[in-house]
Amino acid sequence: MHDVAPQSQGKTPKSEQTRALILETALRLFEERGFDKTTMRAIAQEAGVSVGNAYYYFASKEHLVQGFYDRLAEEHWNAALEAMDGVGDLGKRVRLTLTTWMDVAEPYHAFAAQSFKNAADPSSPLSPFSAESVAAREMVIELHRRVLAGSNLRYDAEIARIMPELLWMHHLAVVLYWAHDRTPRAERTRRLAERTSATVARAVKLSRFKVIRPLVREADAMIREFLITEPAPADVADAAEAKQD
Amino acid sequence: MHDVAPQSQGKTPKSEQTRALILETALRLFEERGFDKTTMRAIAQEAGVSVGNAYYYFASKEHLVQGFYDRLAEEHWNAALEAMDGVGDLGKRVRLTLTTWMDVAEPYHAFAAQSFKNAADPSSPLSPFSAESVAAREMVIELHRRVLAGSNLRYDAEIARIMPELLWMHHLAVVLYWAHDRTPRAERTRRLAERTSATVARAVKLSRFKVIRPLVREADAMIREFLITEPAPADVADAAEAKQD
Repeated sequence: MHDVAPQSQGKTPKSEQTRALILETALRLFEERGFDKTTMRAIAQEAGVSVGNAYYYFASKEHLVQGFYDRLAEEHWNAALEAMDGVGDLGKRVRLTLTTWMDVAEPYHAFAAQSFKNAADPSSPLSPFSAESVAAREMVIELHRRVLAGSNLRYDAEIARIMPELLWMHHLAVVLYWAHDRTPRAERTRRLAERTSATVARAVKLSRFKVIRPLVREADAMIREFLITEPAPADVADAAEAKQD
Repeated sequence: MHDVAPQSQGKTPKSEQTRALILETALRLFEERGFDKTTMRAIAQEAGVSVGNAYYYFASKEHLVQGFYDRLAEEHWNAALEAMDGVGDLGKRVRLTLTTWMDVAEPYHAFAAQSFKNAADPSSPLSPFSAESVAAREMVIELHRRVLAGSNLRYDAEIARIMPELLWMHHLAVVLYWAHDRTPRAERTRRLAERTSATVARAVKLSRFKVIRPLVREADAMIREFLITEPAPADVADAAEAKQD
Protein backbone atom coordinates (compact mmCIF):
# COMPACT_ATOMS: atom_id res chain seq x y z
CA MET A 1 0.00 0.00 0.00
CA HIS A 2 1.11 3.51 -0.73
CA ASP A 3 0.80 6.52 1.50
CA VAL A 4 -2.51 8.26 1.28
CA ALA A 5 -2.11 11.54 -0.58
CA PRO A 6 -1.86 14.40 1.94
CA GLN A 7 -4.92 16.30 0.77
CA SER A 8 -7.45 13.55 1.23
CA GLN A 9 -6.69 13.17 4.92
CA GLY A 10 -9.10 14.02 7.66
CA LYS A 11 -12.15 15.37 5.87
CA THR A 12 -15.53 13.93 6.79
CA PRO A 13 -17.00 11.64 4.14
CA LYS A 14 -20.13 13.82 3.89
CA SER A 15 -18.36 17.13 3.23
CA GLU A 16 -15.90 15.32 0.95
CA GLN A 17 -18.86 13.99 -1.06
CA THR A 18 -20.54 17.38 -1.38
CA ARG A 19 -17.25 18.95 -2.42
CA ALA A 20 -16.70 16.22 -5.03
CA LEU A 21 -20.25 16.60 -6.33
CA ILE A 22 -19.85 20.35 -6.81
CA LEU A 23 -16.50 19.84 -8.52
CA GLU A 24 -17.83 17.12 -10.86
CA THR A 25 -20.81 19.28 -11.77
CA ALA A 26 -18.63 22.31 -12.43
CA LEU A 27 -16.26 20.36 -14.67
CA ARG A 28 -19.20 18.98 -16.64
CA LEU A 29 -20.72 22.45 -17.11
CA PHE A 30 -17.35 24.01 -18.00
CA GLU A 31 -17.02 21.38 -20.70
CA GLU A 32 -20.62 21.77 -21.96
CA ARG A 33 -20.98 25.56 -21.80
CA GLY A 34 -17.43 26.86 -21.58
CA PHE A 35 -15.70 28.23 -18.49
CA ASP A 36 -16.67 31.87 -19.00
CA LYS A 37 -20.36 31.17 -19.52
CA THR A 38 -20.77 28.96 -16.47
CA THR A 39 -21.89 30.76 -13.29
CA MET A 40 -21.52 29.61 -9.69
CA ARG A 41 -25.31 29.84 -9.45
CA ALA A 42 -25.74 27.39 -12.34
CA ILE A 43 -23.22 25.01 -10.80
CA ALA A 44 -25.00 25.08 -7.45
CA GLN A 45 -28.38 24.55 -9.10
CA GLU A 46 -27.19 21.60 -11.19
CA ALA A 47 -25.49 20.04 -8.17
CA GLY A 48 -28.62 20.50 -6.06
CA VAL A 49 -26.95 22.59 -3.36
CA SER A 50 -27.49 26.17 -2.25
CA VAL A 51 -25.33 28.88 -3.79
CA GLY A 52 -23.99 29.65 -0.30
CA ASN A 53 -22.99 26.04 0.11
CA ALA A 54 -21.18 26.04 -3.24
CA TYR A 55 -19.25 29.16 -2.22
CA TYR A 56 -18.41 27.56 1.12
CA TYR A 57 -16.44 24.87 -0.71
CA PHE A 58 -15.12 26.98 -3.60
CA ALA A 59 -14.75 30.75 -3.17
CA SER A 60 -14.76 31.29 -6.96
CA LYS A 61 -14.69 29.50 -10.29
CA GLU A 62 -10.91 29.77 -10.20
CA HIS A 63 -10.96 27.83 -6.93
CA LEU A 64 -12.91 25.14 -8.74
CA VAL A 65 -10.16 24.85 -11.33
CA GLN A 66 -7.66 24.71 -8.48
CA GLY A 67 -9.80 21.98 -6.93
CA PHE A 68 -9.62 20.15 -10.24
CA TYR A 69 -5.81 20.41 -10.27
CA ASP A 70 -5.64 19.18 -6.68
CA ARG A 71 -7.81 16.20 -7.48
CA LEU A 72 -5.80 15.33 -10.59
CA ALA A 73 -2.61 15.57 -8.52
CA GLU A 74 -4.06 13.25 -5.91
CA GLU A 75 -5.34 10.62 -8.36
CA HIS A 76 -2.04 10.81 -10.21
CA TRP A 77 -0.07 10.34 -7.00
CA ASN A 78 -1.83 7.05 -6.31
CA ALA A 79 -1.75 5.77 -9.91
CA ALA A 80 1.90 6.64 -10.48
CA LEU A 81 3.24 5.14 -7.24
CA GLU A 82 1.29 1.96 -7.84
CA ALA A 83 2.52 1.64 -11.44
CA MET A 84 6.19 2.13 -10.63
CA ASP A 85 6.20 -0.13 -7.59
CA GLY A 86 9.17 -2.49 -7.99
CA VAL A 87 10.48 -0.75 -11.13
CA GLY A 88 14.13 0.28 -10.68
CA ASP A 89 15.00 1.82 -14.03
CA LEU A 90 14.77 5.62 -13.82
CA GLY A 91 13.69 6.08 -17.45
CA LYS A 92 10.82 3.62 -16.97
CA ARG A 93 9.79 5.31 -13.72
CA VAL A 94 9.71 8.73 -15.39
CA ARG A 95 7.73 7.29 -18.28
CA LEU A 96 5.19 5.61 -15.97
CA THR A 97 4.75 8.91 -14.16
CA LEU A 98 3.82 10.51 -17.48
CA THR A 99 1.58 7.74 -18.81
CA THR A 100 -0.37 7.43 -15.57
CA TRP A 101 -0.87 11.19 -15.63
CA MET A 102 -2.33 10.95 -19.14
CA ASP A 103 -4.57 8.05 -18.07
CA VAL A 104 -5.91 9.98 -15.10
CA ALA A 105 -6.36 13.23 -17.03
CA GLU A 106 -7.86 11.66 -20.18
CA PRO A 107 -11.53 12.28 -19.25
CA TYR A 108 -10.80 15.98 -18.84
CA HIS A 109 -8.72 16.47 -21.96
CA ALA A 110 -10.95 19.12 -23.55
CA PHE A 111 -11.31 21.16 -20.38
CA ALA A 112 -7.63 20.81 -19.48
CA ALA A 113 -6.52 22.01 -22.92
CA GLN A 114 -8.71 25.07 -22.50
CA SER A 115 -7.65 25.94 -18.96
CA PHE A 116 -3.94 25.31 -19.56
CA LYS A 117 -3.94 28.16 -22.04
CA ASN A 118 -4.58 30.59 -19.21
CA ALA A 119 -2.22 28.67 -16.97
CA ALA A 120 0.67 29.44 -19.35
CA ASP A 121 0.82 32.88 -17.75
CA PRO A 122 3.16 32.43 -14.74
CA SER A 123 1.38 35.28 -12.93
CA SER A 124 -2.03 33.61 -13.20
CA PRO A 125 -3.28 31.99 -9.97
CA LEU A 126 -4.01 28.93 -12.13
CA SER A 127 -0.41 28.64 -13.29
CA PRO A 128 1.43 25.64 -11.83
CA PHE A 129 4.00 28.19 -10.59
CA SER A 130 1.56 30.34 -8.59
CA ALA A 131 1.35 30.75 -4.84
CA GLU A 132 -2.21 29.41 -5.08
CA SER A 133 -1.04 26.18 -6.75
CA VAL A 134 1.40 25.34 -3.96
CA ALA A 135 -0.49 22.24 -2.77
CA ALA A 136 -0.70 20.52 -6.17
CA ARG A 137 2.84 21.66 -7.02
CA GLU A 138 4.43 20.31 -3.85
CA MET A 139 2.57 17.06 -4.31
CA VAL A 140 3.88 16.48 -7.83
CA ILE A 141 7.43 17.56 -6.88
CA GLU A 142 7.29 15.14 -3.94
CA LEU A 143 6.10 12.47 -6.35
CA HIS A 144 9.16 13.10 -8.50
CA ARG A 145 11.34 12.89 -5.42
CA ARG A 146 9.99 9.35 -5.04
CA VAL A 147 10.48 8.64 -8.75
CA LEU A 148 14.16 9.33 -8.16
CA ALA A 149 14.48 7.78 -4.70
CA GLY A 150 12.88 4.51 -5.80
CA SER A 151 15.20 4.08 -8.78
CA ASN A 152 18.39 2.05 -8.77
CA LEU A 153 20.42 5.18 -9.49
CA ARG A 154 23.06 6.37 -7.03
CA TYR A 155 23.19 10.12 -6.50
CA ASP A 156 24.18 12.64 -3.85
CA ALA A 157 22.29 15.05 -1.59
CA GLU A 158 22.40 18.00 -3.98
CA ILE A 159 20.90 16.02 -6.86
CA ALA A 160 18.28 14.62 -4.49
CA ARG A 161 17.33 18.17 -3.57
CA ILE A 162 17.39 19.79 -7.01
CA MET A 163 16.44 17.05 -9.44
CA PRO A 164 12.78 16.44 -8.45
CA GLU A 165 12.01 20.02 -9.45
CA LEU A 166 13.76 19.62 -12.81
CA LEU A 167 11.90 16.35 -13.41
CA TRP A 168 8.69 18.24 -12.69
CA MET A 169 9.60 20.82 -15.36
CA HIS A 170 9.96 17.97 -17.85
CA HIS A 171 6.57 16.70 -16.69
CA LEU A 172 4.99 20.14 -17.28
CA ALA A 173 6.46 20.36 -20.77
CA VAL A 174 4.93 17.00 -21.72
CA VAL A 175 1.60 17.98 -20.14
CA LEU A 176 1.56 21.16 -22.25
CA TYR A 177 2.21 19.08 -25.36
CA TRP A 178 -0.55 16.69 -24.31
CA ALA A 179 -3.02 19.56 -23.86
CA HIS A 180 -2.70 20.37 -27.58
CA ASP A 181 -2.54 16.76 -28.78
CA ARG A 182 -5.63 15.72 -30.74
CA THR A 183 -4.60 12.13 -31.56
CA PRO A 184 -6.79 9.36 -30.02
CA ARG A 185 -5.82 8.70 -26.38
CA ALA A 186 -3.00 11.19 -26.94
CA GLU A 187 -0.95 8.55 -28.74
CA ARG A 188 1.46 11.12 -30.08
CA THR A 189 2.25 12.44 -26.60
CA ARG A 190 2.71 8.86 -25.41
CA ARG A 191 5.31 8.30 -28.12
CA LEU A 192 6.97 11.59 -27.19
CA ALA A 193 6.95 10.66 -23.49
CA GLU A 194 8.70 7.38 -24.26
CA ARG A 195 11.49 9.30 -25.97
CA THR A 196 11.84 12.17 -23.49
CA SER A 197 11.80 9.81 -20.49
CA ALA A 198 14.84 7.94 -21.79
CA THR A 199 16.65 11.20 -22.58
CA VAL A 200 15.81 12.73 -19.22
CA ALA A 201 17.03 9.64 -17.37
CA ARG A 202 20.28 9.87 -19.31
CA ALA A 203 20.58 13.55 -18.40
CA VAL A 204 20.00 12.80 -14.71
CA LYS A 205 22.83 10.26 -14.82
CA LEU A 206 25.15 12.80 -16.47
CA SER A 207 24.25 15.49 -13.95
CA ARG A 208 26.58 13.80 -11.47
CA PHE A 209 29.62 14.86 -13.51
CA LYS A 210 31.47 17.77 -12.03
CA VAL A 211 31.48 19.67 -15.31
CA ILE A 212 27.67 19.45 -15.66
CA ARG A 213 26.82 20.32 -12.08
CA PRO A 214 26.89 24.14 -12.50
CA LEU A 215 24.24 23.87 -15.22
CA VAL A 216 21.91 21.88 -12.99
CA ARG A 217 22.47 24.29 -10.11
CA GLU A 218 21.80 27.33 -12.30
CA ALA A 219 18.66 25.80 -13.82
CA ASP A 220 17.33 25.22 -10.32
CA ALA A 221 18.18 28.78 -9.22
CA MET A 222 16.48 30.29 -12.27
CA ILE A 223 13.31 28.23 -11.81
CA ARG A 224 13.06 29.40 -8.19
CA GLU A 225 13.87 33.01 -8.97
CA PHE A 226 11.89 33.54 -12.17
CA LEU A 227 9.08 30.99 -12.25
CA ILE A 228 7.86 29.78 -8.89
CA THR A 229 5.95 32.19 -6.65
CA GLU A 230 6.15 30.94 -3.09
CA PRO A 231 3.05 31.60 -1.00
CA ALA A 232 3.37 34.08 1.87
CA PRO A 233 4.58 32.44 5.14
CA ALA A 234 1.07 32.64 6.69
CA ASP A 235 -0.38 30.66 3.78
CA VAL A 236 2.30 28.02 4.16
CA ALA A 237 1.38 27.61 7.82
CA ASP A 238 -2.28 27.27 6.81
CA ALA A 239 -1.43 24.67 4.20
CA ALA A 240 0.64 22.66 6.66
CA GLU A 241 -2.22 22.81 9.15
CA ALA A 242 -4.74 21.73 6.55
CA LYS A 243 -2.57 18.70 5.77
CA GLN A 244 -2.52 17.69 9.41
CA ASP A 245 -6.25 18.25 10.01
CA MET B 1 26.88 46.13 -43.69
CA HIS B 2 24.85 43.03 -43.06
CA ASP B 3 22.99 40.99 -45.59
CA VAL B 4 19.55 42.26 -46.39
CA ALA B 5 16.97 39.95 -44.85
CA PRO B 6 15.71 37.57 -47.54
CA GLN B 7 12.05 38.61 -47.41
CA SER B 8 12.52 42.27 -48.18
CA GLN B 9 14.22 41.60 -51.50
CA GLY B 10 12.70 42.42 -54.83
CA LYS B 11 9.35 43.96 -53.96
CA THR B 12 8.42 47.29 -55.52
CA PRO B 13 8.48 50.20 -53.07
CA LYS B 14 4.82 50.99 -53.82
CA SER B 15 3.42 47.52 -53.12
CA GLU B 16 5.76 47.24 -50.13
CA GLN B 17 4.30 50.49 -48.77
CA THR B 18 0.69 49.41 -49.23
CA ARG B 19 1.43 46.08 -47.61
CA ALA B 20 3.12 47.82 -44.66
CA LEU B 21 0.23 50.27 -44.32
CA ILE B 22 -2.35 47.46 -44.18
CA LEU B 23 -0.23 45.57 -41.65
CA GLU B 24 0.28 48.64 -39.42
CA THR B 25 -3.41 49.42 -39.51
CA ALA B 26 -4.35 45.85 -38.67
CA LEU B 27 -1.97 45.71 -35.71
CA ARG B 28 -3.37 48.98 -34.39
CA LEU B 29 -6.97 47.76 -34.70
CA PHE B 30 -6.15 44.36 -33.17
CA GLU B 31 -4.71 46.19 -30.20
CA GLU B 32 -7.61 48.67 -29.93
CA ARG B 33 -10.55 46.32 -30.58
CA GLY B 34 -9.15 42.85 -30.06
CA PHE B 35 -8.25 40.34 -32.75
CA ASP B 36 -11.64 38.60 -32.90
CA LYS B 37 -13.65 41.81 -33.23
CA THR B 38 -11.56 43.28 -36.04
CA THR B 39 -12.80 42.49 -39.56
CA MET B 40 -10.83 42.64 -42.81
CA ARG B 41 -13.39 45.20 -44.01
CA ALA B 42 -12.62 47.49 -41.06
CA ILE B 43 -8.88 47.12 -41.66
CA ALA B 44 -9.26 48.01 -45.35
CA GLN B 45 -11.47 51.00 -44.51
CA GLU B 46 -9.07 52.37 -41.89
CA ALA B 47 -6.10 51.88 -44.21
CA GLY B 48 -7.95 53.60 -47.06
CA VAL B 49 -7.69 50.68 -49.49
CA SER B 50 -10.36 48.51 -51.07
CA VAL B 51 -11.32 45.26 -49.37
CA GLY B 52 -10.14 43.40 -52.47
CA ASN B 53 -6.77 45.09 -52.22
CA ALA B 54 -6.44 44.15 -48.55
CA TYR B 55 -7.21 40.52 -49.41
CA TYR B 56 -4.66 40.65 -52.24
CA TYR B 57 -1.90 41.27 -49.70
CA PHE B 58 -3.29 39.17 -46.83
CA ALA B 59 -5.66 36.29 -47.55
CA SER B 60 -7.00 36.32 -43.96
CA LYS B 61 -6.49 37.85 -40.54
CA GLU B 62 -4.21 34.92 -39.73
CA HIS B 63 -2.05 35.93 -42.68
CA LEU B 64 -1.80 39.39 -41.13
CA VAL B 65 -0.47 37.87 -37.93
CA GLN B 66 1.96 35.85 -40.03
CA GLY B 67 2.95 39.09 -41.76
CA PHE B 68 3.58 40.58 -38.33
CA TYR B 69 5.83 37.64 -37.40
CA ASP B 70 7.71 37.99 -40.69
CA ARG B 71 8.27 41.68 -40.13
CA LEU B 72 9.42 41.16 -36.55
CA ALA B 73 11.82 38.47 -37.78
CA GLU B 74 13.22 40.83 -40.40
CA GLU B 75 13.67 43.81 -38.05
CA HIS B 76 15.20 41.51 -35.49
CA TRP B 77 17.62 40.06 -38.05
CA ASN B 78 19.02 43.52 -38.78
CA ALA B 79 19.11 44.73 -35.17
CA ALA B 80 20.71 41.55 -33.81
CA LEU B 81 23.45 41.27 -36.44
CA GLU B 82 24.33 44.90 -35.99
CA ALA B 83 24.47 44.64 -32.19
CA MET B 84 26.69 41.55 -32.12
CA ASP B 85 29.09 42.75 -34.79
CA GLY B 86 32.61 42.29 -33.43
CA VAL B 87 31.43 40.49 -30.26
CA GLY B 88 33.15 37.10 -29.92
CA ASP B 89 31.78 35.78 -26.63
CA LEU B 90 28.94 33.32 -27.30
CA GLY B 91 27.03 34.19 -24.11
CA LYS B 92 27.05 37.87 -25.02
CA ARG B 93 25.98 37.11 -28.59
CA VAL B 94 23.04 35.02 -27.36
CA ARG B 95 22.07 37.74 -24.92
CA LEU B 96 22.21 40.46 -27.58
CA THR B 97 20.00 38.33 -29.79
CA LEU B 98 17.43 38.27 -27.00
CA THR B 99 17.64 41.93 -25.97
CA THR B 100 17.41 43.19 -29.56
CA TRP B 101 14.35 40.99 -30.01
CA MET B 102 12.72 42.59 -26.97
CA ASP B 103 13.62 46.07 -28.23
CA VAL B 104 12.10 45.38 -31.64
CA ALA B 105 8.98 43.70 -30.24
CA GLU B 106 8.37 46.18 -27.41
CA PRO B 107 5.77 48.32 -29.28
CA TYR B 108 3.68 45.20 -29.90
CA HIS B 109 3.90 43.70 -26.43
CA ALA B 110 0.15 43.68 -25.73
CA PHE B 111 -0.76 42.18 -29.09
CA ALA B 112 2.09 39.69 -29.01
CA ALA B 113 1.09 38.43 -25.55
CA GLN B 114 -2.44 37.86 -26.83
CA SER B 115 -1.49 36.14 -30.09
CA PHE B 116 1.22 33.95 -28.52
CA LYS B 117 -1.48 32.27 -26.44
CA ASN B 118 -2.93 30.78 -29.61
CA ALA B 119 0.54 30.14 -30.94
CA ALA B 120 1.25 27.79 -28.02
CA ASP B 121 -0.74 25.15 -29.90
CA PRO B 122 1.84 23.45 -32.17
CA SER B 123 -0.91 22.58 -34.67
CA SER B 124 -1.99 26.23 -35.07
CA PRO B 125 -0.82 27.89 -38.31
CA LEU B 126 0.38 30.74 -36.07
CA SER B 127 2.64 28.46 -34.04
CA PRO B 128 6.36 29.01 -34.66
CA PHE B 129 6.48 25.30 -35.49
CA SER B 130 3.84 25.35 -38.24
CA ALA B 131 4.35 24.82 -41.97
CA GLU B 132 2.94 28.33 -42.48
CA SER B 133 5.62 29.88 -40.24
CA VAL B 134 8.49 28.39 -42.22
CA ALA B 135 9.80 31.75 -43.50
CA ALA B 136 10.07 33.46 -40.09
CA ARG B 137 11.32 30.21 -38.52
CA GLU B 138 14.11 29.65 -41.04
CA MET B 139 15.14 33.26 -40.71
CA VAL B 140 15.54 33.10 -36.93
CA ILE B 141 17.29 29.70 -37.09
CA GLU B 142 19.67 31.13 -39.69
CA LEU B 143 20.24 34.08 -37.38
CA HIS B 144 21.23 31.67 -34.61
CA ARG B 145 23.56 29.92 -37.03
CA ARG B 146 25.33 33.26 -37.33
CA VAL B 147 25.25 33.81 -33.56
CA LEU B 148 27.27 30.62 -33.29
CA ALA B 149 29.45 31.07 -36.38
CA GLY B 150 30.52 34.59 -35.37
CA SER B 151 31.57 33.52 -31.87
CA ASN B 152 35.10 32.60 -30.88
CA LEU B 153 33.99 29.08 -30.03
CA ARG B 154 35.43 26.12 -31.89
CA TYR B 155 32.97 23.40 -32.78
CA ASP B 156 32.42 20.67 -35.34
CA ALA B 157 30.03 20.14 -38.24
CA GLU B 158 27.38 18.29 -36.23
CA ILE B 159 27.13 21.04 -33.61
CA ALA B 160 27.03 23.63 -36.39
CA ARG B 161 24.08 21.78 -37.89
CA ILE B 162 22.09 21.00 -34.74
CA MET B 163 22.85 23.82 -32.33
CA PRO B 164 21.18 26.77 -34.13
CA GLU B 165 17.86 25.00 -33.74
CA LEU B 166 18.44 24.38 -30.02
CA LEU B 167 19.45 28.01 -29.55
CA TRP B 168 16.19 28.96 -31.25
CA MET B 169 14.25 26.81 -28.73
CA HIS B 170 15.92 28.78 -25.94
CA HIS B 171 14.94 31.97 -27.76
CA LEU B 172 11.29 30.82 -27.96
CA ALA B 173 11.22 29.98 -24.25
CA VAL B 174 12.43 33.48 -23.34
CA VAL B 175 9.94 35.03 -25.80
CA LEU B 176 7.11 33.11 -24.12
CA TYR B 177 8.25 34.41 -20.74
CA TRP B 178 8.44 37.93 -22.17
CA ALA B 179 4.89 37.69 -23.52
CA HIS B 180 3.59 37.32 -19.96
CA ASP B 181 6.00 39.79 -18.38
CA ARG B 182 4.27 42.95 -17.13
CA THR B 183 7.32 44.76 -15.72
CA PRO B 184 8.28 48.06 -17.44
CA ARG B 185 10.28 47.41 -20.63
CA ALA B 186 10.18 43.72 -19.66
CA GLU B 187 12.97 44.25 -17.12
CA ARG B 188 12.33 40.92 -15.52
CA THR B 189 12.75 39.06 -18.81
CA ARG B 190 15.94 41.04 -19.46
CA ARG B 191 17.35 39.85 -16.15
CA LEU B 192 16.28 36.30 -16.99
CA ALA B 193 17.86 36.54 -20.45
CA GLU B 194 21.15 37.61 -18.92
CA ARG B 195 21.16 34.48 -16.80
CA THR B 196 19.92 32.01 -19.40
CA SER B 197 22.35 33.30 -22.04
CA ALA B 198 25.34 32.54 -19.86
CA THR B 199 23.97 29.11 -18.99
CA VAL B 200 23.15 28.29 -22.59
CA ALA B 201 26.62 29.32 -23.74
CA ARG B 202 28.08 27.03 -21.11
CA ALA B 203 25.84 24.20 -22.31
CA VAL B 204 26.93 24.73 -25.92
CA LYS B 205 30.56 24.43 -24.84
CA LEU B 206 29.82 21.21 -22.96
CA SER B 207 27.93 19.76 -25.90
CA ARG B 208 31.27 18.96 -27.53
CA PHE B 209 31.94 16.29 -24.93
CA LYS B 210 31.40 12.78 -26.22
CA VAL B 211 29.25 11.82 -23.25
CA ILE B 212 26.85 14.77 -23.83
CA ARG B 213 26.57 14.39 -27.60
CA PRO B 214 23.76 11.77 -27.58
CA LEU B 215 21.55 14.16 -25.57
CA VAL B 216 22.03 16.95 -28.08
CA ARG B 217 21.37 14.60 -30.97
CA GLU B 218 18.21 13.24 -29.36
CA ALA B 219 16.89 16.72 -28.50
CA ASP B 220 17.30 17.70 -32.15
CA ALA B 221 15.58 14.52 -33.38
CA MET B 222 12.61 15.06 -31.02
CA ILE B 223 12.17 18.69 -32.03
CA ARG B 224 12.05 17.68 -35.69
CA GLU B 225 9.77 14.71 -35.13
CA PHE B 226 7.32 16.13 -32.60
CA LEU B 227 7.33 19.91 -32.94
CA ILE B 228 8.24 21.24 -36.35
CA THR B 229 5.82 20.73 -39.24
CA GLU B 230 7.75 21.05 -42.47
CA PRO B 231 5.79 22.57 -45.34
CA ALA B 232 4.91 20.32 -48.27
CA PRO B 233 7.72 20.15 -50.91
CA ALA B 234 5.72 22.39 -53.31
CA ASP B 235 5.52 25.14 -50.69
CA VAL B 236 9.25 24.94 -50.08
CA ALA B 237 9.89 25.45 -53.78
CA ASP B 238 7.55 28.47 -53.71
CA ALA B 239 9.34 29.95 -50.71
CA ALA B 240 12.74 29.49 -52.34
CA GLU B 241 11.44 31.18 -55.47
CA ALA B 242 9.98 34.07 -53.50
CA LYS B 243 13.38 34.63 -51.88
CA GLN B 244 15.05 34.85 -55.28
CA ASP B 245 12.47 37.19 -56.81
